Amino acid sequence: MVDGPTGLWLVGARGSVATTAVSGLLALRAGLVEAVGCVTERPELAGVALPAWSDLAVGGHDVAQGPLEKRAELLAEGGVLPHHLLECVRAGLREVDGEIRTADYGGVQADVVRRLAADITAFRERRGLARVVVVDVSSTEPPVPPLPEHADLAALERALADPDRRVLPPSSLAACAALTAGCPFVAFTPSTGIALPALDELARREGLPYAGRDGKTGETLLRAVLAPMFTARALRVRSWAGTNLLGGGDGATLEDPAHAESKLKSKANGLAALLGGDVTAPLHIDNVPDLGETKTAWDHVSFEGFLGARMSLQLTWTGLDSALAAPLVLDLTRLVAAAHAAGESGALGALAFFFKDPLGTDEHRFAEQTRELHAWARGLA
Amino acid sequence: MVDGPTGLWLVGARGSVATTAVSGLLALRAGLVEAVGCVTERPELAGVALPAWSDLAVGGHDVAQGPLEKRAELLAEGGVLPHHLLECVRAGLREVDGEIRTADYGGVQADVVRRLAADITAFRERRGLARVVVVDVSSTEPPVPPLPEHADLAALERALADPDRRVLPPSSLAACAALTAGCPFVAFTPSTGIALPALDELARREGLPYAGRDGKTGETLLRAVLAPMFTARALRVRSWAGTNLLGGGDGATLEDPAHAESKLKSKANGLAALLGGDVTAPLHIDNVPDLGETKTAWDHVSFEGFLGARMSLQLTWTGLDSALAAPLVLDLTRLVAAAHAAGESGALGALAFFFKDPLGTDEHRFAEQTRELHAWARGLA
Amino acid sequence: MVDGPTGLWLVGARGSVATTAVSGLLALRAGLVEAVGCVTERPELAGVALPAWSDLAVGGHDVAQGPLEKRAELLAEGGVLPHHLLECVRAGLREVDGEIRTADYGGVQADVVRRLAADITAFRERRGLARVVVVDVSSTEPPVPPLPEHADLAALERALADPDRRVLPPSSLAACAALTAGCPFVAFTPSTGIALPALDELARREGLPYAGRDGKTGETLLRAVLAPMFTARALRVRSWAGTNLLGGGDGATLEDPAHAESKLKSKANGLAALLGGDVTAPLHIDNVPDLGETKTAWDHVSFEGFLGARMSLQLTWTGLDSALAAPLVLDLTRLVAAAHAAGESGALGALAFFFKDPLGTDEHRFAEQTRELHAWARGLA
Amino acid sequence: MVDGPTGLWLVGARGSVATTAVSGLLALRAGLVEAVGCVTERPELAGVALPAWSDLAVGGHDVAQGPLEKRAELLAEGGVLPHHLLECVRAGLREVDGEIRTADYGGVQADVVRRLAADITAFRERRGLARVVVVDVSSTEPPVPPLPEHADLAALERALADPDRRVLPPSSLAACAALTAGCPFVAFTPSTGIALPALDELARREGLPYAGRDGKTGETLLRAVLAPMFTARALRVRSWAGTNLLGGGDGATLEDPAHAESKLKSKANGLAALLGGDVTAPLHIDNVPDLGETKTAWDHVSFEGFLGARMSLQLTWTGLDSALAAPLVLDLTRLVAAAHAAGESGALGALAFFFKDPLGTDEHRFAEQTRELHAWARGLA
Repeated sequence: MVDGPTGLWLVGARGSVATTAVSGLLALRAGLVEAVGCVTERPELAGVALPAWSDLAVGGHDVAQGPLEKRAELLAEGGVLPHHLLECVRAGLREVDGEIRTADYGGVQADVVRRLAADITAFRERRGLARVVVVDVSSTEPPVPPLPEHADLAALERALADPDRRVLPPSSLAACAALTAGCPFVAFTPSTGIALPALDELARREGLPYAGRDGKTGETLLRAVLAPMFTARALRVRSWAGTNLLGGGDGATLEDPAHAESKLKSKANGLAALLGGDVTAPLHIDNVPDLGETKTAWDHVSFEGFLGARMSLQLTWTGLDSALAAPLVLDLTRLVAAAHAAGESGALGALAFFFKDPLGTDEHRFAEQTRELHAWARGLA
Repeated sequence: MVDGPTGLWLVGARGSVATTAVSGLLALRAGLVEAVGCVTERPELAGVALPAWSDLAVGGHDVAQGPLEKRAELLAEGGVLPHHLLECVRAGLREVDGEIRTADYGGVQADVVRRLAADITAFRERRGLARVVVVDVSSTEPPVPPLPEHADLAALERALADPDRRVLPPSSLAACAALTAGCPFVAFTPSTGIALPALDELARREGLPYAGRDGKTGETLLRAVLAPMFTARALRVRSWAGTNLLGGGDGATLEDPAHAESKLKSKANGLAALLGGDVTAPLHIDNVPDLGETKTAWDHVSFEGFLGARMSLQLTWTGLDSALAAPLVLDLTRLVAAAHAAGESGALGALAFFFKDPLGTDEHRFAEQTRELHAWARGLA
Repeated sequence: MVDGPTGLWLVGARGSVATTAVSGLLALRAGLVEAVGCVTERPELAGVALPAWSDLAVGGHDVAQGPLEKRAELLAEGGVLPHHLLECVRAGLREVDGEIRTADYGGVQADVVRRLAADITAFRERRGLARVVVVDVSSTEPPVPPLPEHADLAALERALADPDRRVLPPSSLAACAALTAGCPFVAFTPSTGIALPALDELARREGLPYAGRDGKTGETLLRAVLAPMFTARALRVRSWAGTNLLGGGDGATLEDPAHAESKLKSKANGLAALLGGDVTAPLHIDNVPDLGETKTAWDHVSFEGFLGARMSLQLTWTGLDSALAAPLVLDLTRLVAAAHAAGESGALGALAFFFKDPLGTDEHRFAEQTRELHAWARGLA
Repeated sequence: MVDGPTGLWLVGARGSVATTAVSGLLALRAGLVEAVGCVTERPELAGVALPAWSDLAVGGHDVAQGPLEKRAELLAEGGVLPHHLLECVRAGLREVDGEIRTADYGGVQADVVRRLAADITAFRERRGLARVVVVDVSSTEPPVPPLPEHADLAALERALADPDRRVLPPSSLAACAALTAGCPFVAFTPSTGIALPALDELARREGLPYAGRDGKTGETLLRAVLAPMFTARALRVRSWAGTNLLGGGDGATLEDPAHAESKLKSKANGLAALLGGDVTAPLHIDNVPDLGETKTAWDHVSFEGFLGARMSLQLTWTGLDSALAAPLVLDLTRLVAAAHAAGESGALGALAFFFKDPLGTDEHRFAEQTRELHAWARGLA
């Protein structure tokens, strides 16, 4: 049972996903739109006690400045936000703007964690919130090389205090700050974030649940649905090639091969888990600025059937990534808040439904993930 | 537990699907190929007592003449049968040829049923079979107008004996003959077949199981997999348009709008059951002779997400229909034989996994169908 | 040399294509947009004397009421008109509204022609125009059964005067009115329009040029470009299947098989002319209302190469039909005005570049049409 | 006028393209197949004096061993050669095998050239040929760094004689050997080959024609056809993304980024020449071994129309590369032989029709290339 108003603290609060989520929350609260894309509004989750739209307060961190309204205007031009809605949510966006703090990841890392945590704590107290769910929707980071400290909380805490060391990337500092402030955490990006044994240890020690990672919104969603079909039908997938074209800030970030590596790994893990390792699976992410908010993915699946017959399936997915991600951010906030209220801690494997590279479970099959989500959520009630 | 050799009696035994199934069975028995596409060889069904490949004997009916070898040669040219395999199965095909009887649907219908049943009974006795599963893989018939006799077994039996009436189409005469001969029946086509209340009554009276209808091999399989994804994610499908291009005998048959109507109905039912009735869903089947055995389907799905965002998914499926259907025919023979041995009777809803328009259940979601199949099959053990 | 201000009289002036053309003309005149999609702005036509954007005055007929502004708002929601542009053209749209007359096709047909012609003549005189080009962009009509009067101008004129006969469909009455008013005519739809020998006779008698028919904006454009490639490479196209999904008013009109027939004929003619008659070419137009202004076409081309190799090409075209058609309407107005000024009369075959089913020529190959257009236009100078 | 029997000397004579070309030539000569895919059999070239199929004798170089028959069997399994044809051409393949020499590119480069040239000369004399056209269909090489000797024939000849230097890659040694033997040369691959100023100088000095480079068989062919359509219609292409999936030896070679670079450059040049340089054009070539001889390319074109409307075109090309390339190899042999007979020398720009990266011209538009080819060929007569 969720007992009181709930905070949503967005890391990357000025980005496209965050702005879409906030605009949508404002529109839902005002009864201007239906909750299309919101899984927590499905009949299967009807009996679960979740925070109402009107019970959610939003704040966040970002390294960038620039008002949410400006971003929302760009999203309207990009077809993500309807123009008529934009006018209705301007006031609400300005209010959320007042709850966004500039993130500064410089200096001794233990101090960074303290500063970030203090911002979250102040938000919780100022707004009188029962709890705050921290959701990372910031830009994808490059993978980080493993360090011994990543696997040992005590060693990590010593290293964070060492002014000469930088042992955690920003996404993990954000996760650490969330836990330090007593808040559950959601890793919506493929960045390292909370996916380190030492941070898992911290979450369990603090009795905090977390979920991740990398929101499953398009191509990987299709793969999680279709790969089990081939398996169930005893058809042998021989290759699964993919090309992703995207513009926007995401496209620009992923143009850098170092940043793309995290995303590509996260995608490849899923396919190997679903079909085994001997499937040829080239995968590309291309920055195509003119596509703006639209993301187009083409997948070509070659498979073998009875008597060696060679067949194929092609998919072209044309999605608006922010529109796909934003309702999931709201869903995760509600569900993780409920998990926190119910006293769960550690990785919430039952939320694999939402993620490309799920933490706390090895289940990648979408239908199984769906059943697990429903069963788990009903169990919270 | 399946207790002894099992017969497979194919209605339409000289067609592409039958010839591929027989050739494949011969190749499997000789250890020349792996059982790719055979669901009954999946680990999930490992403990189920099913007839071995070497325990299956094949016979059948067809209205056409012409040796299986000739058809197999055409299938080799069409890419369905590998050339090297063709040589290995020639002798076996000739042997099965000797067990195919010409079907004659003329004359008083009760006599037709008796003659067809006698052929099946003779096959069972001649080959010393514990049971025979009759599988209809013949050409799609047009839908038949409903008659009161279709819903009342006693009335149907009187009408069949009336020399002036023709109350059943050939596919239903075949189903009736199977039941009369004490054999389970599988409707692999969308024809009327066993899908009449009077024949259901007959099956139950005789304690015989049956399954159907219309093998789910391509576009509808994808729909059964993908439609639940949209539902689970609370995305609103607005339209799902489909175009099927196919050649071969199937293409020629379905060029006739009357015959296509059965197939189109069977496909449309599934989508409406999965997504509700208010989805625009134009659907076409075109005869494109040069495509031969290859069937290409294009689906365009338009859906709405958060804040009214408009997105789309396109699918192009390029399959060899006979290669997709044939292993399912073998699977169904084994599973229905096991159901018969276990004493089941009536429509086997647990086999919905295999069909576009499942009898005995309303479940169209593929993942649920898969779980039900596995659970049911393990229950037989 | 075009000598003075030119009128554009739109038949169907309140529809999507017309509204987009007018909005675009206003934006071009104000220097708010670049002339993307306007062929007459290409360097190849640089020296041709054409009316300037500021020299074009617009009026028209429509059977519907309802201000252009409302239609423009719908087009903005449908992604055809940018929102920021809408505000800039409102005043201009209202002004054009004042020049649109209600078309009434009832009564004795000779009277209808006189009334329509009078509207056009009044517009020319009121605005002091050197000439008026009449362009039919109204909804597609069903094909009309041939009558002897269609081939004989004198007989046609008698029949038009007969109060008991209705020998011409509205599109042909519009063409007849244009010619009667001394105006060149452009048939941008597949309707019968001017494509009758008797009207050709009338145009030549009056010394008026005309062009048509059925604007080539999407799938047929691709076919006119790609079919010659297969021919040039000696590759044998075996089938060319097409499916068109469209919403909007056009989708609704073409849902009626009678109306679709005109469009399908126009499309099929082109393919047969390009590739010969023995290509299997199923073609569908489906009304999918949720697609709105977006039109999606899928083409599947199967072709044979060296040694019988079977290969394929698939195309998916996603276009905004009004945005593709509107600049061509402006181009045709300019070019036909120039032809009129240059004294040309009869069907302008050199404008085949713009049409699915070109009048006055048998040339369907796009590259040849392009060369002919350029040569002809330069010849006008 | 071609005066006597003509030789075709294939560099890479044991590869897929060469084997398909030779098998096809044998089948054409025997009247077993129609000349589908052979441009020189089009009516437009009917009057041109070209060597007959029966006048072509084939030999060649390869670094690999292994009989053509084995390769032909693999091509039959891969769907390139029909099985029934394979039997008919076995004897002919064995005969050509006897005319293939092992290429050895080791040692002093001047000696390599002499040895290779001697093989060609011996073939011409042994078979009594009026001329031999040397066609490079070997595997793609990486690009070579430019050297001053590449631009100066005298310096190049000195460097070739220097035992310590390796100034030319194998493809250029092959070109040099052809010219040294007095033979015209065709560069069917993107390798450096004859595309060096010093070799152009040599060709002109010897009065020999040559043509290249990189046979245009699939994706680039489509681009050369479609890009001019967008230009002619004043539509602004914003991005043109491409993904190529291929198996076979070609896939394996191009998996190495160094080798792929030549191919990618050759493809990118074409698009930039057609559309200008500011089009975003990511391009990938992926090795997908299970696809075998089949090559699948997906292109996504995003373009802007009137009033900024955003639209797209997607293409999926599924081709058998060897079946597309082989007839062009035969066409080029005939046409270059005729050019030689007519006394032409230097780069044959009129053959741009056949190439991705044409030498001797800047024309990339396919329709223009087609017209130039026809005009040039008729001029030879």
